[in-house]
Amino acid sequence: MIDGALLIGGEARQAANRFTAVNPASGETLTPDFSSARADAVAEACALAEEAFPTYAATDLELRAAFLEGIAQNILDIGDALIERAMAESGLPRARLEGERGRTVGQLKLFAGVVRQGDFLDATIDPALPDRAPLPRPDLRRVNLAIGPVAVFGASNFPLAFSVAGGDTASALAAGCPVVVKGHPSHPGTGELVARAIQKAVQDAGLPAGVFSYLPGETNELGGALVADPRIQAVGFTGSRGGGLALVRIAAERDEPIPVYAEMSSINPVILFPAALANRGAALAKEYVGSLTMGAGQFCTNPGLVLAVDSPELDAFVKAAGEALTESQPATMLSPGIHASFEKGVAELASHEAVRTVARGKTGEGVNQAVGALFETTADQFLADVKLSHEVFGSSSMLVRCRDIGEIASVIAKLEGQLTATLQVDPADEADAAKLVPVIARRVGRILANGWPTGVEVAPAMVHGGPFPATSDGRTTSVGTLAIARFLRPVCYQNLAPALLPKALHDDNAWGIARRLDGKREASPR
Amino acid sequence: MIDGALLIGGEARQAANRFTAVNPASGETLTPDFSSARADAVAEACALAEEAFPTYAATDLELRAAFLEGIAQNILDIGDALIERAMAESGLPRARLEGERGRTVGQLKLFAGVVRQGDFLDATIDPALPDRAPLPRPDLRRVNLAIGPVAVFGASNFPLAFSVAGGDTASALAAGCPVVVKGHPSHPGTGELVARAIQKAVQDAGLPAGVFSYLPGETNELGGALVADPRIQAVGFTGSRGGGLALVRIAAERDEPIPVYAEMSSINPVILFPAALANRGAALAKEYVGSLTMGAGQFCTNPGLVLAVDSPELDAFVKAAGEALTESQPATMLSPGIHASFEKGVAELASHEAVRTVARGKTGEGVNQAVGALFETTADQFLADVKLSHEVFGSSSMLVRCRDIGEIASVIAKLEGQLTATLQVDPADEADAAKLVPVIARRVGRILANGWPTGVEVAPAMVHGGPFPATSDGRTTSVGTLAIARFLRPVCYQNLAPALLPKALHDDNAWGIARRLDGKREASPR
Repeated sequence: MIDGALLIGGEARQAANRFTAVNPASGETLTPDFSSARADAVAEACALAEEAFPTYAATDLELRAAFLEGIAQNILDIGDALIERAMAESGLPRARLEGERGRTVGQLKLFAGVVRQGDFLDATIDPALPDRAPLPRPDLRRVNLAIGPVAVFGASNFPLAFSVAGGDTASALAAGCPVVVKGHPSHPGTGELVARAIQKAVQDAGLPAGVFSYLPGETNELGGALVADPRIQAVGFTGSRGGGLALVRIAAERDEPIPVYAEMSSINPVILFPAALANRGAALAKEYVGSLTMGAGQFCTNPGLVLAVDSPELDAFVKAAGEALTESQPATMLSPGIHASFEKGVAELASHEAVRTVARGKTGEGVNQAVGALFETTADQFLADVKLSHEVFGSSSMLVRCRDIGEIASVIAKLEGQLTATLQVDPADEADAAKLVPVIARRVGRILANGWPTGVEVAPAMVHGGPFPATSDGRTTSVGTLAIARFLRPVCYQNLAPALLPKALHDDNAWGIARRLDGKREASPR
Repeated sequence: MIDGALLIGGEARQAANRFTAVNPASGETLTPDFSSARADAVAEACALAEEAFPTYAATDLELRAAFLEGIAQNILDIGDALIERAMAESGLPRARLEGERGRTVGQLKLFAGVVRQGDFLDATIDPALPDRAPLPRPDLRRVNLAIGPVAVFGASNFPLAFSVAGGDTASALAAGCPVVVKGHPSHPGTGELVARAIQKAVQDAGLPAGVFSYLPGETNELGGALVADPRIQAVGFTGSRGGGLALVRIAAERDEPIPVYAEMSSINPVILFPAALANRGAALAKEYVGSLTMGAGQFCTNPGLVLAVDSPELDAFVKAAGEALTESQPATMLSPGIHASFEKGVAELASHEAVRTVARGKTGEGVNQAVGALFETTADQFLADVKLSHEVFGSSSMLVRCRDIGEIASVIAKLEGQLTATLQVDPADEADAAKLVPVIARRVGRILANGWPTGVEVAPAMVHGGPFPATSDGRTTSVGTLAIARFLRPVCYQNLAPALLPKALHDDNAWGIARRLDGKREASPR
């Protein structure tokens, strides 16, 4: 059901202020209209989250895991209505959204496994040493506790996997934190369907209603009020640099500052090493354009920057990429606002005196369509104007001609933090690449070889993060099992009677989790 | 040797600007005078740290562990000169400083063990699944890398264990980060002796000289320039709330903001439960005054707040504590500035209309002496004026009379974040305590029972941290093995050829570390 309500704890409530969504493919306004949450709703949702916190944070692992699986099942149970609505609100094609639903459900199930395994608790026991000289050692036990209620900001570009029940929500709920979602105004119907699925799972699991609330809205004030609410203890956000930094500022100005995990801005450099370029330049050109234009280029990991040594092989690559891009189809972008920003960014690059436009994609009849754009410049010029390194969200990419590998290293060392860097590297390139990899590792969260950065595996070893401004906290990831660590904090218990200890630290280890005893960690039980 | 030099990488350099240290017990100026580092020295030290980073971050674990042990040995080799100088500069007694030296050396050796064990790397391998449908999984490998050069600010109250070679330096070096220490101006001679011990260890280990620099100085500009330097990637600090927050602001305003781990302000509530108070009130009163006045009360974990239910037993406790305090000896504080702040804080409480002065300790003849102070008020009054909950660094403590356990819970829920909370709890109190522990756990880093918060064990399960303003980052600890996590960040390697992977992720696992394979963690090897 979509009726435009705010979902506050167990209730559905219509608000006086309304907003509507637009079908970006047609420009038409969609029905129904939606409640726009204001400060009163924020306060109510946060109070319920705070009230729910002690109970939810102390849930048995099995109950919490089953709850996450319940959300996954409820999302599947919405059926095709979810896909249809998401298509209408995002302009994304069916196959992509079906895949994204699979990923969303998969993430929830993955975190159910993480919860059952219990490694995330990092339970650590240093037994008392009563006879130690000169002083005895007390009994010390440490465990990760849920940080408190978490605010999650739905992203525009993944209406399912990075939104209401996306990675931030799944990992925060897995950690034991109630979640208040600020729904993205571009896809409020999709958001409401998913939010109702979570609300029902809360109810079915017998959890306090405040474990989850959903606040759609189109105002900046809504997000600001949510981050400023003293009951919120951490923030998950995926979106623009401006939006993320605004939340970081609000969080820092609170009486009690809190962590903000904002995934913001990245141009994801791709480095074409000489042998790879010589051996498979034509294939690389096609793959590159495929990665660049996939989903209208609206991925955080879109390859927005290509670095290579100037050479005839590079000329051939540029020519082939330009030809492939010229043949590429336009694609509907997520919203009129995103499309307008893309057009502006592309126009600025196209008119920049240090930039040559290599090619543009095909234009079409529809509204809000991204027409792919490939530009080129030199390393000197790229380094001379920081604007050339700013992200243009969408299928726009800049190729930078470098004199040699050393100049590629210089460009990388001066880049802002990035989510990814990609190496196209053949065996003959390995000596060059080995020198570059440590330089690259300082600027990115993930380094990949002989693939493309779009497509982020949800796995234990994944890092979807990186130094500022890729994220506001380069010590974390928003994708993969490690994402749960963002919503935990360690607490030490010294000489506490068993009845006063959290369950993870009881001698009997009823949850059967792996623990660290006297500094030595046990193997994962499952 | 103490000659007042700046130690920049492998060199010793005298600066034009000078400052001197004072013996707080006598008020006399100590010789020699010391170089006061300025912006040029900061830039030089940071450039050397950056230059050293790639080599040092990639050191073999055994080499890095032996280097830490070398520092420990070199500190011991200074012999009694170190203790004598620290006594003169801090006013702390010999036994305390010998103990602190043991702790400093022990921390370095503990981190050598942490480095050899390799668990801190969190090495994680998700093997490729080439046949997975609908898409194959790439080979994904994740490891924690050193974050970059780290700035460490020496603390006034632990001239050895939280200073030049203290916990921050030991954990940052263990993580693979070069360190630039801003020496505390109260004990520059002690600092120089230790800094030379580290400098020699760097040389003996054949490491790049920039792995360590020592910049003494008495200006705020020195610290500001260090945190603002673009090569510094994280900051460790122990000190005042004002000082810590100034560094947090500077770090946030950088083009690339960086984490600041500031351990700042805590009043460490002690809760006297009714049965414990009835059964052992007289003993508790004596122990309390002992913990309060130990080391002139100059511990981060000094018990500055006592909460208890109003009762005749509490009256008896207050009387006994007052009597014990009246008999307590004055003690030299660390510096004239700290003594002046203590006097001011105590005077403000003594003249506060809602506060009764229960007792003061004995006064003495010397300068800069802390005279213990015990105050009391009611929960209503305590909650009515936030000034009553501000830390007075030194042997000053506030007892708050509460109507019942519920009011104790209300006071705790409204407290700012704390390093510790202490429960004096007998078996008959456990039902009450069990309700309070989850409330307390949200406000503190460590909960202890039937002991006193002063005395922080250096161990795997220790948390010396806590929510703001106890620290600027409540997800961390500055004491214990987990402190290393502050200086690490995860990086994922996808489909990289073996020659391009960091050693921790090689198939052959030459370091013999425990890793996580396909989501399952191995047991620690040692």
